[in-house]
Amino acid sequence: MQNKQPVILITNDDGITAPGIKALVEAVKHLATVIVVAPDSPQSGMGHAITIGHPLRLNKVDMFEGVDSWQCSGTPADCVKLARDKILHGKPDICLSGINHGANHSINVIYSGTMSAAMEAAIEGVPSIGFSSLDYSFDADFTLAAQVARGLTIRMLENPMPEHTLLNVNIPVVTNEAYKGLKICRQAYARWDEQFDHRVDPRGKDYYWMVGKFINMDKEPGTDVEALKEGYASIVPVKIDFTDFKMKSWLEEQWKF
Amino acid sequence: MQNKQPVILITNDDGITAPGIKALVEAVKHLATVIVVAPDSPQSGMGHAITIGHPLRLNKVDMFEGVDSWQCSGTPADCVKLARDKILHGKPDICLSGINHGANHSINVIYSGTMSAAMEAAIEGVPSIGFSSLDYSFDADFTLAAQVARGLTIRMLENPMPEHTLLNVNIPVVTNEAYKGLKICRQAYARWDEQFDHRVDPRGKDYYWMVGKFINMDKEPGTDVEALKEGYASIVPVKIDFTDFKMKSWLEEQWKF
Repeated sequence: MQNKQPVILITNDDGITAPGIKALVEAVKHLATVIVVAPDSPQSGMGHAITIGHPLRLNKVDMFEGVDSWQCSGTPADCVKLARDKILHGKPDICLSGINHGANHSINVIYSGTMSAAMEAAIEGVPSIGFSSLDYSFDADFTLAAQVARGLTIRMLENPMPEHTLLNVNIPVVTNEAYKGLKICRQAYARWDEQFDHRVDPRGKDYYWMVGKFINMDKEPGTDVEALKEGYASIVPVKIDFTDFKMKSWLEEQWKF
Repeated sequence: MQNKQPVILITNDDGITAPGIKALVEAVKHLATVIVVAPDSPQSGMGHAITIGHPLRLNKVDMFEGVDSWQCSGTPADCVKLARDKILHGKPDICLSGINHGANHSINVIYSGTMSAAMEAAIEGVPSIGFSSLDYSFDADFTLAAQVARGLTIRMLENPMPEHTLLNVNIPVVTNEAYKGLKICRQAYARWDEQFDHRVDPRGKDYYWMVGKFINMDKEPGTDVEALKEGYASIVPVKIDFTDFKMKSWLEEQWKF
């Protein structure tokens, strides 16, 4: 049964040249047949965008040693869709996204291109994980994140997650000694309080830069934000059914139709 | 207490010139002080994208009689954020998004710019509704959708939804006689099966157009897809906590850390 090598599709949202995806590819490429299809430019904050009004480009590139790779002009979700239809001609066994340069815990899951790729794969029935490091810098140290990614990928191969499931994994910036291990969490209830920095361009016209301040409104235990603060890597399983059943009961009771 | 007129923020993802937003504005403008902040160009399929790598433009326009309106160069989520910080200097009482030209039932909620605006508002504590008509055409008849929007807005004003909640409302294309009324539903378990139409440009380079086929995998009763098929307008309450608690238990049991 297990004669065939499993196939892992890797993508990200920082673009195919980002150090984070390289760290991920290197961490898992000896575990399976790895295929990379990633955006040709940064796609951070793209949420679950797909490209419907423009055509897409897909070009083979020589990027990672011993790993077939393509860059795509679309979004992370586009990459997953294109990989399935035009490269793999079917589903990979696993999809991994990242390693993102920057946190995707709590509410960030809905803005994150990294997580949208993982979600797209899960919708298509491919168990997937999005990995994000809390280090935003280009030259972030991905040693710990790569180690976490490798460990979880081995688990996925040995004890597969159910179909249509995905995990949001965030890795703290801590020393090896301070790292506490993995922790299964729930999404913290948080939001970004955005202010816009108002400027005037050389032609006298107004423009605005978004400047966000993260607000954690969640004081209860068990959240990803809390775990990360304590030095754990957080694992939040993410749902693709967004129905709010509690609110459904509220509506049925309050707004009788 | 109720001396001050409530404030309704209206946005969409088809752009400020789309007939759908006009129908929505006209349907509710006599119920409250309405402010429009909408994208200056179509943003369909933008998911929950936000603009972080580029500056944003925001310009006042004269678009709807008696209603202050602005067009924004960003995404629907950007519009909600900018409206709060730069125009309202605080939260509106309600946010309405749409009326979208095309369905946003089932899995479409995650790709939809219309719903991302409503979700952004809900995250910020503004109860909101996204409205979508199953008619994709530019010159769709929004009579029924506008009637539904007006009715639900009156309910929201009379019996406010809890903070941080939002509804995904879809309106079928049916005659007045065939319309069955409103139905509270859950999100159907469905996906888009995308194929990519391969073409070659005049310079000999490949490009691809996304072509999707909708697949409803949900055979159980109570879904939005089913309700719409029967002639109801569907209402699905949408959650902003994406944690998959069932999968959390699976992980705790299967992947012991």
